[in-house]
Amino acid sequence: MSVPRIDAVYRLHVPAAQAGHRARLLAVEQSIEMPPEAVGDGRVPDEVLARVDDVATQPDGTSLARLQLACETVGEDAGQLMNMLFGNCSLQPDVELVDVEVPALLASAFGGPNLGIDGLRRLTAASGRPLTCTALKPIGSTVSQLVELCRVFAQSGIDVIKDDHGWANQRSAPFEERVPACQQAVRKADGATGRRTLYAPSLYGTQVQMQRQIELARSRGVAAFLIAPLVCGVATFNALRREHPDLAFIAHPALGGNRIAPPVLLGKLLRLFGADAVIFPNHGGRFTYPAETCQAIARGNRAAWHGLRPSLPVPAGGMSVERVPELKREYGADSMLLIGGSLLAAGERLAERSRAFVEAVAAGEAAA
Amino acid sequence: MSVPRIDAVYRLHVPAAQAGHRARLLAVEQSIEMPPEAVGDGRVPDEVLARVDDVATQPDGTSLARLQLACETVGEDAGQLMNMLFGNCSLQPDVELVDVEVPALLASAFGGPNLGIDGLRRLTAASGRPLTCTALKPIGSTVSQLVELCRVFAQSGIDVIKDDHGWANQRSAPFEERVPACQQAVRKADGATGRRTLYAPSLYGTQVQMQRQIELARSRGVAAFLIAPLVCGVATFNALRREHPDLAFIAHPALGGNRIAPPVLLGKLLRLFGADAVIFPNHGGRFTYPAETCQAIARGNRAAWHGLRPSLPVPAGGMSVERVPELKREYGADSMLLIGGSLLAAGERLAERSRAFVEAVAAGEAAA
Repeated sequence: MSVPRIDAVYRLHVPAAQAGHRARLLAVEQSIEMPPEAVGDGRVPDEVLARVDDVATQPDGTSLARLQLACETVGEDAGQLMNMLFGNCSLQPDVELVDVEVPALLASAFGGPNLGIDGLRRLTAASGRPLTCTALKPIGSTVSQLVELCRVFAQSGIDVIKDDHGWANQRSAPFEERVPACQQAVRKADGATGRRTLYAPSLYGTQVQMQRQIELARSRGVAAFLIAPLVCGVATFNALRREHPDLAFIAHPALGGNRIAPPVLLGKLLRLFGADAVIFPNHGGRFTYPAETCQAIARGNRAAWHGLRPSLPVPAGGMSVERVPELKREYGADSMLLIGGSLLAAGERLAERSRAFVEAVAAGEAAA
Repeated sequence: MSVPRIDAVYRLHVPAAQAGHRARLLAVEQSIEMPPEAVGDGRVPDEVLARVDDVATQPDGTSLARLQLACETVGEDAGQLMNMLFGNCSLQPDVELVDVEVPALLASAFGGPNLGIDGLRRLTAASGRPLTCTALKPIGSTVSQLVELCRVFAQSGIDVIKDDHGWANQRSAPFEERVPACQQAVRKADGATGRRTLYAPSLYGTQVQMQRQIELARSRGVAAFLIAPLVCGVATFNALRREHPDLAFIAHPALGGNRIAPPVLLGKLLRLFGADAVIFPNHGGRFTYPAETCQAIARGNRAAWHGLRPSLPVPAGGMSVERVPELKREYGADSMLLIGGSLLAAGERLAERSRAFVEAVAAGEAAA
């Protein structure tokens, strides 16, 4: 019986006649990193060397190479999966990683989202519609300014208020002051409205620092966190998710621009490592992903996959209240719409604009 | 008195007429992430918003935008420096980061290499010539196969034997078995030759896992480690360097392919965060960096910079004994030459080939 392998599909930007050779070099690069004929131990070429399963030239002249990587090269380490999938070839501009499939055992080892879409709905009591999300901006604000934003956003009925991803431990609002104060402001507003708003502080630094941040925040009732897995390392992210199975993690794509196709990195890998929600730059905003890429990310987040919980796709990056009907049509109810700066630009009319966001999301399709 | 800022130079791939506007958008993206005119607190646009210092169109039609980022957005967190320099704009394909300068205080906070070039020379007793380095390959080998490689390499007089960067905790040679056995083999050979060879095991996983790996290895006398900062996260890397000021860290560039120019990422940032030696893909090997890029990396590793120790540049990736004279001329004595697979390809003549490597590096320029 053959041992299951990791399937990885790479796009090779080389002339078609060279694609087979390039694929074999890639298989060596992403596994044993030495000439297979020079390996003394016969087990290694058979069981450890990546295999070239298929190479197919495409109409655009590039070729798709399907490689099979041995699971034993990865173990259960998320960082090592990234390393074997794309560590060295990230330095080779003729290669893109365009799809990944992992065996069920590996999916189960990484575990996927703790709570997933259903869990986030339970935490926020939001059903049958997209969740609403906004961000505490700008960095440089004081704690009292952020508390006031929390009050207004929570009173307006926004489901999730996250720290802007630039928040770490800045002196204008250090984590230890900011997080308890914002959480308290949200709870207080919830008490008045009867709603449930989640406050998600941004984690920064190393695993040990993040553990301390989580413990502090958890002691105040915080149940969700923002994390940038490509900044902190996916192994750190996956470890936190395993150690805190009752918490939700919202993944931010910062530093995620490389030649791993966004539907793979943001659609699949971040879900695999534990993202309950995945923020991605939606088309038509400040970023340039095409619509098909964005839709493929959302499909990856939600598709049936080895029994992993689905992640909530979060189209973001320059969205506005005016685009809510379009976003609802495009991403459906199982999504979270994130509007940040565009709400804050309303200035004194922030509460009104925030309520308009909540109402636009709650409205039936007819209102679109 | 103005507060020192972080200087970051970005190449903008936009029409020249749009470059000024694009630079201002980038300054917002990489700092406050909201319209400056909508910020209520006047301190934030003055002190926190990134400033556009200069925008200059280049002969190739791109523009170079010099931005000044506020240090208060970063604190002393290496991950946060990456986030503010390139977190969001890594997702915008029209932007590259092509230079970075940090204030002396920030350089001192991150601290740079623990030992640097002089320290690595002391550890290996190698003076007046490049250091020699090879790698334990392939992953999938058994501990006894790796021990035999260590014996041959150390007896041949190679200065540094590192784990291949694909080594984590694979079952064919788990870290806890591999590292003590390889270290012992190297020490034993050293005892016979009177030389000093450094064995550098590969760290994997999270900060907590790496701490355990370091403690285990250190108890056996290991003094140098291989680490992939872009895989584990630069904050984890910098924290380990701070916690273990007597250890050397050899940085591997895996997952480092993005739109941060290699002379910035590998030449400067990895040094800033603590790389005593920086492995980079040399031109003419399996990777495609041009020669000027490689030389700029080496310059960044060694240039005078806020009193930080210099890092040892390590040209690698498909190098061979035949290229040693050329590599010596190009990179000079303050470098480390890494030859991996090409030695192993010698099969039964591994010892002979390894000695040839050592002798070629030791030979005077006349031998070239």
